[in-house]
Amino acid sequence: MKKPRWVIDKEQGKKAAAAETVWLFGLHAVRDALANPAREKLRLVVTLNAQAKLEEAIAAAGMTPEISDPRKFAAPIDPQSVHQGAALEVKPLNWGDLETLCLGDGQRPPRVVLLDRVTDPHNVGAILRSAEVFGACAVIAPRHHSAPETGALAKTASGALERQPYLQVRNLSDAIRQLHGMGYLVLGLDGEAEVTIETALEGLRDRPVALVLGAEGPGLRQKTRETCDKLVKIDFSGGFGSLNVSNAAAVALYASQPR
Amino acid sequence: MKKPRWVIDKEQGKKAAAAETVWLFGLHAVRDALANPAREKLRLVVTLNAQAKLEEAIAAAGMTPEISDPRKFAAPIDPQSVHQGAALEVKPLNWGDLETLCLGDGQRPPRVVLLDRVTDPHNVGAILRSAEVFGACAVIAPRHHSAPETGALAKTASGALERQPYLQVRNLSDAIRQLHGMGYLVLGLDGEAEVTIETALEGLRDRPVALVLGAEGPGLRQKTRETCDKLVKIDFSGGFGSLNVSNAAAVALYASQPR
Repeated sequence: MKKPRWVIDKEQGKKAAAAETVWLFGLHAVRDALANPAREKLRLVVTLNAQAKLEEAIAAAGMTPEISDPRKFAAPIDPQSVHQGAALEVKPLNWGDLETLCLGDGQRPPRVVLLDRVTDPHNVGAILRSAEVFGACAVIAPRHHSAPETGALAKTASGALERQPYLQVRNLSDAIRQLHGMGYLVLGLDGEAEVTIETALEGLRDRPVALVLGAEGPGLRQKTRETCDKLVKIDFSGGFGSLNVSNAAAVALYASQPR
Repeated sequence: MKKPRWVIDKEQGKKAAAAETVWLFGLHAVRDALANPAREKLRLVVTLNAQAKLEEAIAAAGMTPEISDPRKFAAPIDPQSVHQGAALEVKPLNWGDLETLCLGDGQRPPRVVLLDRVTDPHNVGAILRSAEVFGACAVIAPRHHSAPETGALAKTASGALERQPYLQVRNLSDAIRQLHGMGYLVLGLDGEAEVTIETALEGLRDRPVALVLGAEGPGLRQKTRETCDKLVKIDFSGGFGSLNVSNAAAVALYASQPR
């Protein structure tokens, strides 16, 4: 039984309100978050050096930074982090609901990426970049067993986290069913599949397409596989080796572009 | 003036002999190295647990492991490393000379990837995997300012380091000229280029093709750009954002496959 939308909205609202804050770090990530009007910013900690570099972005965001000694950086982040003297405490972004996000722009058939338990923030960061470059509406992952929005993710996303919708849903199979209801063709990536992406999309490139990728090793879970319309593999891939999951996502996005 | 081959060979031989050894770690990387007959193996340190998991590979390699206490792992590697109780000291692989490597198999037009100062071992590891999957003859990088063959690289390469030639050359422009001499079409990846890979390869897919990628941020160096036949961009990539370099390499390899 599907919950009514208002129940889901309420639950998501509660969840968002209770959400822990996130410390973003690094000049690039902090600058992009400062420049994002949709980003709720709480505290900015910078060294004098970083303050000078971020001067314009800080002024535009209207924030008053706390100046910190570089030898004893005051933000509560992992001291191993390459923070470059800049850290910004923020709330996770609220990307709204799946259906609105995945409608697309009406200009070209939409593309969406779903991640089935991809937990490495470096991979998810790279996937957000590829999704942005290839114009995907959203990257969707389950709320549990996925890479949360963290400073490390933001840093590898290299700005894309501020611009590319990254939606964490309660249940991935439910999200796939919602996409089905919107007319999406849902393709699950599987190295053992017999059909290539190109073949599966012959004559169907004007359809909305969702690409589902699993974690390296386990791949797609059985429940996820069953919810996909078709399992597909990447063309030209030979017998040996396997692609890193972010590389597979980039190639799949490229291979499934509307023409 | 080009040095005669025998001088280069001698220098490379000296270099290889003097090369420091490398500690590979992690069950996957150690198992693949044990299984590689071309890999010169020196010392194997394992916990009892890891020994059990690697039993067959250790027997096949004919090595006598040193058993270590997991709480005080005896291999001289970064204690932060996810070594899973297994570490193997090896010599870097010797992939031979560029021309032999890049001749291809005579079955299909060869593909080669060149990296212009890509230093992040995680990116290079992922690129080795993509090169293997898409059947590239070699990944070529300058000896300096590149990611050396390390445990971290081997781990992200997920076995591909043992199988995918990774050639470190003295000078990248010289390598490009050598490839020119072998009939290669050399394409430099550049987000600002006007021509897409697909367009640049129209009617030329039966040619040997080399793809040159620069580090994120600086991109290709001026000298490298000048040595390429053409600068190309990845199709469909929009105005915003940029691909992670390993994602760009994967898409470029896919987009340039012989058909």
